[in-house]
Amino acid sequence: MNQVNVGVIGAGYWGPNLLRNFTELSNARVVALADLSDERLTHMKSRYPEVEMIKDYRDFFQMGVEAVVVATPPTSHFDIARDCLEHNLHVLVEKPLTLNSRDAQTLVDIAEARGLTLMVGHTFEYNAAVRALKEIIDSGELGQVYYINAVRLNLGLFQRKLNVLWDLAPHDISIMLYLLGQDPLTISAQGATCIFKDLHDVAYMHLAFPNNVVGHIHTSWLDPNKVRKITVVGSKKMAVYDDVEPLEKIKIYDKGVDAPPYTDTYGDFQLSYRYGDVVIPHIRFTEPLRLECQHFLECILEGKRPLSDGRDGLKVVRILEAAEQSLNNGGIQVAFAYQEEGEHERVAV
Amino acid sequence: MNQVNVGVIGAGYWGPNLLRNFTELSNARVVALADLSDERLTHMKSRYPEVEMIKDYRDFFQMGVEAVVVATPPTSHFDIARDCLEHNLHVLVEKPLTLNSRDAQTLVDIAEARGLTLMVGHTFEYNAAVRALKEIIDSGELGQVYYINAVRLNLGLFQRKLNVLWDLAPHDISIMLYLLGQDPLTISAQGATCIFKDLHDVAYMHLAFPNNVVGHIHTSWLDPNKVRKITVVGSKKMAVYDDVEPLEKIKIYDKGVDAPPYTDTYGDFQLSYRYGDVVIPHIRFTEPLRLECQHFLECILEGKRPLSDGRDGLKVVRILEAAEQSLNNGGIQVAFAYQEEGEHERVAV
Amino acid sequence: MNQVNVGVIGAGYWGPNLLRNFTELSNARVVALADLSDERLTHMKSRYPEVEMIKDYRDFFQMGVEAVVVATPPTSHFDIARDCLEHNLHVLVEKPLTLNSRDAQTLVDIAEARGLTLMVGHTFEYNAAVRALKEIIDSGELGQVYYINAVRLNLGLFQRKLNVLWDLAPHDISIMLYLLGQDPLTISAQGATCIFKDLHDVAYMHLAFPNNVVGHIHTSWLDPNKVRKITVVGSKKMAVYDDVEPLEKIKIYDKGVDAPPYTDTYGDFQLSYRYGDVVIPHIRFTEPLRLECQHFLECILEGKRPLSDGRDGLKVVRILEAAEQSLNNGGIQVAFAYQEEGEHERVAV
Amino acid sequence: MNQVNVGVIGAGYWGPNLLRNFTELSNARVVALADLSDERLTHMKSRYPEVEMIKDYRDFFQMGVEAVVVATPPTSHFDIARDCLEHNLHVLVEKPLTLNSRDAQTLVDIAEARGLTLMVGHTFEYNAAVRALKEIIDSGELGQVYYINAVRLNLGLFQRKLNVLWDLAPHDISIMLYLLGQDPLTISAQGATCIFKDLHDVAYMHLAFPNNVVGHIHTSWLDPNKVRKITVVGSKKMAVYDDVEPLEKIKIYDKGVDAPPYTDTYGDFQLSYRYGDVVIPHIRFTEPLRLECQHFLECILEGKRPLSDGRDGLKVVRILEAAEQSLNNGGIQVAFAYQEEGEHERVAV
Repeated sequence: MNQVNVGVIGAGYWGPNLLRNFTELSNARVVALADLSDERLTHMKSRYPEVEMIKDYRDFFQMGVEAVVVATPPTSHFDIARDCLEHNLHVLVEKPLTLNSRDAQTLVDIAEARGLTLMVGHTFEYNAAVRALKEIIDSGELGQVYYINAVRLNLGLFQRKLNVLWDLAPHDISIMLYLLGQDPLTISAQGATCIFKDLHDVAYMHLAFPNNVVGHIHTSWLDPNKVRKITVVGSKKMAVYDDVEPLEKIKIYDKGVDAPPYTDTYGDFQLSYRYGDVVIPHIRFTEPLRLECQHFLECILEGKRPLSDGRDGLKVVRILEAAEQSLNNGGIQVAFAYQEEGEHERVAV
Repeated sequence: MNQVNVGVIGAGYWGPNLLRNFTELSNARVVALADLSDERLTHMKSRYPEVEMIKDYRDFFQMGVEAVVVATPPTSHFDIARDCLEHNLHVLVEKPLTLNSRDAQTLVDIAEARGLTLMVGHTFEYNAAVRALKEIIDSGELGQVYYINAVRLNLGLFQRKLNVLWDLAPHDISIMLYLLGQDPLTISAQGATCIFKDLHDVAYMHLAFPNNVVGHIHTSWLDPNKVRKITVVGSKKMAVYDDVEPLEKIKIYDKGVDAPPYTDTYGDFQLSYRYGDVVIPHIRFTEPLRLECQHFLECILEGKRPLSDGRDGLKVVRILEAAEQSLNNGGIQVAFAYQEEGEHERVAV
Repeated sequence: MNQVNVGVIGAGYWGPNLLRNFTELSNARVVALADLSDERLTHMKSRYPEVEMIKDYRDFFQMGVEAVVVATPPTSHFDIARDCLEHNLHVLVEKPLTLNSRDAQTLVDIAEARGLTLMVGHTFEYNAAVRALKEIIDSGELGQVYYINAVRLNLGLFQRKLNVLWDLAPHDISIMLYLLGQDPLTISAQGATCIFKDLHDVAYMHLAFPNNVVGHIHTSWLDPNKVRKITVVGSKKMAVYDDVEPLEKIKIYDKGVDAPPYTDTYGDFQLSYRYGDVVIPHIRFTEPLRLECQHFLECILEGKRPLSDGRDGLKVVRILEAAEQSLNNGGIQVAFAYQEEGEHERVAV
Repeated sequence: MNQVNVGVIGAGYWGPNLLRNFTELSNARVVALADLSDERLTHMKSRYPEVEMIKDYRDFFQMGVEAVVVATPPTSHFDIARDCLEHNLHVLVEKPLTLNSRDAQTLVDIAEARGLTLMVGHTFEYNAAVRALKEIIDSGELGQVYYINAVRLNLGLFQRKLNVLWDLAPHDISIMLYLLGQDPLTISAQGATCIFKDLHDVAYMHLAFPNNVVGHIHTSWLDPNKVRKITVVGSKKMAVYDDVEPLEKIKIYDKGVDAPPYTDTYGDFQLSYRYGDVVIPHIRFTEPLRLECQHFLECILEGKRPLSDGRDGLKVVRILEAAEQSLNNGGIQVAFAYQEEGEHERVAV
C-alpha cells in the first residue's frame, strides 16, 4: 500500500486548504469531502470534480476511506474523531484536538488500542521558520534559553463557544513545547472580556518551565495590527521570529548581558552588555500544511508516530484547561502534570 | 518672586538633563549641583561654569536654594527628599518617588503640612504624544476604552537593588492612570529572573480597573529590541502610541468589532468587523522634561498642585508594592486601595 | 450573447492566473488552453479537467473561441495577436503589447478595421490602490501635481531578449499616464548593464510632461529588496503608494512648502513648511486581474472601448522605444509625439 | 605645538555643532566665534562663556587664531576661505567647497603654495557606517561593484541661491568617490523645478565610472519622507546603507545572479538566483563630525594631507558643475576630466 484514501470533513475556513494539499500529494487519493452546507459542496465540486461531495461524513465508512481529516468547528472534533477511530480510520484533527482533556484522552486511548494514527494539526511544528528556530536553539547558538515571549494578535475572527486562548494559543503552546522540548510546571492566565462579558477576547498566559525558564503568550482578537512574533532570549544570543515578515522571518541578535563571575557585594556589580551582528538566515519555505499532510500520510504508510500526535494534542488541551482554570480564578498558578505512559518512538518529519 | 533658586542633586544618567533644562528656563536660577563624584563635578563645571559644584547637597541649606531636584539612585530618594522638605525646600524627585509606600506617605505628609510643592518626575505625563493620546481618549473618539497594553523592552540597563518593575513600570503605570483617570482595583504580576536569581529582569503586570477595563504592562531589561509601545483598544477605534517611531508616534485605527444588539442564541452570533482609515496626527513636539521642569517652577511660583504630585508618586509606589507582592507569591491578585484624603485642586500644565 | 468563449495562449508564469480568473467569471467559458509544453498542459489539465489542452493555438479557430488572451513571451505577442485578430477574435495581450510601435500600430489598425476589442494587460490600471490614488489626485486633494517618482526593483526575473525597461517599466508608464491623464513631451533614459554587456538590467527613465510636470522611473532586476513605490508630490499634499505593503498601501501626507506671494529679492525668501496629519485610506481590495478580465469581457459584450485598449498599448510601446533610443545614445532627450486619430468613447470600468 | 587655536565662522545651522565639537577636543582651543547676528552671538555666549564672540571674522587675524572653520552660507565660502588662507590660517570649509571650480582651484593653489591645510567638510567620509561599507567593499565581499544607487530626500530645507544638487548631492558624490576610489568619466542630470521656476528642487544625477560601473543619485527637497539610502550592488553580494535607521544601518545581502559561463545561444540562457543570509554588522558609532574635527587638527599638527582635502572639494565642485551643465541642457552627458598634478600623501584617519 503506498496510497491512502482520504476523506476531508469540513469545507469551512481551513478545510479547503487541507483538501487542496491532499489532492496535490501523490500518496493520497481524496475520495470525498463532507460538509453540511450544500452551497459549499457545490462550490467545491466545481473546483474538484473528481472528489465525491457528501453531506454526512458517515458515508465515508462505506466508501473505502482509510484516513480522515477533521476540519469542523472544535465543538464537534471529539464526536467525529471518535466515531472515525471506532470505524478504524486514521484521523488528523485540527487544533485544538478537543475541548477537554478527558475527551482527548479517550481519543488517544482508542487510537493506541487499535494501532491507528491520531494526529493533531499543530501546523507551526511543520513551519520552516519554526524548525529553523528549533535548530538554532538545539545547536546551542543561543546558549541556555531564559524565556520565550509569544504575541499573536489581530482583529477577529471571534468564535462564540471558544475564547481567544482556545483559538489562538494552541499555536504558541505547541511551538513552545516543540522549541523547549519540555512541559511547563505551572500555568496561569489573565485576560479581558471586551465584546462579550462571558468570553475572553484578550488573554495573557504565563508558563513556568523547569530550570527557571519562563514562557509568556499574549493573544488577542482585538488589536489593530496583525502580530505573530516569538522572541527567544538565551544566555548567549537572542532570536526573534516574526511570522508576519514576508522574507526576513528570523533575526538572530548577538546581544546579551554578561554577569560577573561572583556578585556578592554591590561593588562587584558590573554587567557588560554585548551588541554584535544581527543575522537573518535564509529560510527555504515550503507550505507548512503541505509538510503536515505529507507527514500524516507517511505515518500511516510507515506506521510511525506523528511529530504532533494525539498525546501532544492532549498535552496542549491540558495546558489550555489549566489556563482557563486560572483565567476564571484571578490568575492563580495551576500545576500542570502530564504523565507519559510507556515509551513511544517518535520520528522527525 | 518670579524666579526660583534651584539645586540639582545627582549628576549621573538623568541629572545632567535636568540641569540643562533648568539652566535654560528663565524663571529658574540653578545655584548649585551636588554629586559625590569629583570627576563628574569637574566635567559638569566645564559645561556650566556659573553653577556651583558641591559634594554634599546639605550645603544647599546655606546657599539660598529654594527648590531641589533629586536625581540620585532610588535607594536614596527618601532620605534626601525628606531632609530637603524638612529644610523647607520644594522638591522634585525622579521616579520612583520612594521604594515603599510608607516613605512616600511620609514625604506627602511633610510637604502638605508645610505647604511645599512635592512633585515626582513621571515624565511621560509631560510628553506631547501621551497628551495627544489622552485628548483623543477624552474626546470620545475611541469610544469606551476596553484595554491598554503597554510594552517597554530593551537590553539593559540593569539595576541591582531594584527589579525591572520598579525601574521601567513607573512610566507605564503613570501613563495608564493619566489616560484612564482612575485607579486599578487589583494588581498581579509574573516574571522571570534570568541574570540574577533574586532579581526580576522580565515582568508582566496585570491591572484590573473599574468597569471591566484591563491594563497590561510588559517590561524587560533583556530584549534584543528597544520597544516602547502602548495600544489603547476602544469600542469605536484603536490607537497605538509607538515612542520609538521618530515622527509617526500615534496611529488611530478606525477599526473595531460590532456585536449585534442581542446575542442569546448561537444563530444570533453575527459580529461585523470594521476596517477604516488610519490617521497619524501631526504632533508638535516639545521636550517632555522641559515641560516638566517648567511645570515644577510654575507650581512653586503660583502655589498650584502639580499634575504629577507626591500623591501620584505615592499611588504608583503602592501599585508597584502590590505588583511585587504578587510577583513573589505566584501571581496572585492583590487588591489596591488608595484613599484620597480631602480635595485638592489640580491644574493642567 | 452574454457569455464569451475564451481561449488562453501560454501557460507559463502569468497564463495560469488568467486562466483561473476567466474560469471563475460567469460571463466567460474557457474553451481551451494552448501551450507548447506537454508537461505544462498535463499539469493544467489535472487542475482544469473541463478545459481543452492543445499545443497549437490555431486550433482555436475551429473550436468556437471568440476571444483570446495572449500570455506568451513578448517576442511572439505580435504574430499571435495579429493572427487571432485576422481570424476575427477579440484579443487581450499581456504587456508590452508588442516590441515595436509599427507592430502595435498594425494590431490597432486591424482591430479597429474589424471592430474587434483589442486590449493590453496594463494590470495596474485595474488595481484598487492605483484607482484610489487617481481619485485622490482628480479630487484636487494633492493640489497641482509637481512630479511622480516610481521605483520598481527586485532580484530577477531576467529576460534575455528584452531589457529591464521593456519588462518592468510598462507598469509605471501606464500608471503615470493613467494618473496624469496626459502624455509626455520628451523621454530620456540611462542605465547599467551588469550581468550581460548587451542588456540593461538597471534603468532610469525621465519623462517631461506638459506644465512642467516630471516623471521618473527607476527599474532594476538587480536589487536586494523588492520595491514597488510611487510618490506623487503635489502643491498641497503628497501621496505615497507602496504596493509591497500588505495593508497600508497609500499614505497621504498633509505636507508641503508654501512659497511667499512674491520673491523678487533675497530678503523676501521665506518659505514655510507644512507638517500635518498623515491619512492611510482604507482600500477595499479586489484582485486587479479579476477586474481586468471582467472588463475585457464587458467590452466585448457591450462593444465598449477598454480602459487599456490597443492605443494605450501602442502609446506605452512608443514611450519605451523613445526610452531605448535615449538609453543607447547617452541619455539624450527624445521627443514623444502621439497623434490620436479620431475620437473614441472610453469607458470607466 | 600640540594645541591649535581655532576660530569658527558662522553660528547658523551647522556652526554650533562644529563649535561644540572643537570645544570638546583636547588639542583645540576655540578662541572665538564670528557671526553677523548679535542675537546668535548672545545666545552662543550664554553657552560658551569662555569663547570670544565677534561680528567680523577678520578680527581673528589679530587674535592668534591658527585655524578657521567656515560654516557660512556657500556663497561666501570662497571669499572667506581665501582671505583666511592668505592670512596663513588653516581652513576647514563646509561643503560645497565653493560654487565654481575656478574658485576651488584658487583655494587649492593658495593652500598648497603656503603649505596650509585646506579641508572640506565631507562629513560622511568620517561616518562609521560609510567606513564600514568601504571596508566591506574593499575586502572583496561584494565582489565587483556593478552600481551604486543613492537616494537623499526630505521636505526642505530650501536654499535660494543654490539648487538641490549643490545642497544635497555633495554628500553622495563624496561617498561614491570614497567607496569606489575612482572618478566618473561622464555625468548627466535631470530634474524638476516645482516651487521656483529657476531652481531645481528635485534632481537625478547619473555618473558613468570606468569599467562599466554606474552611480545614480536622487536628491529632493520635496518628499514626504526623510530618506538617506545607498545601495551597492556587487557581483557577489549586495549592501544597503540606510542612514535613517537608528541601529541597523548596514545590511549585507548574500544575494545575486549567476550567469552561465557562456551564453551564445538562447538555449544556454539559464541564470541562477542566489538567496542567502542577511547580515547586519554591528557598527560602533562615533559622531562623524567629531572624527572630522579631530582629523583636521591632526592634519594641521602632523602636516598630513586630509582625507577630504581641498582637491577632493574641488573634484566634487567640478562634478556638480558638470551636473548643472547637463541639467540645463536636457540631460546631455558631460565629460569629467580631473587631472591630479603631482603625487600627494594621503592618510587614513
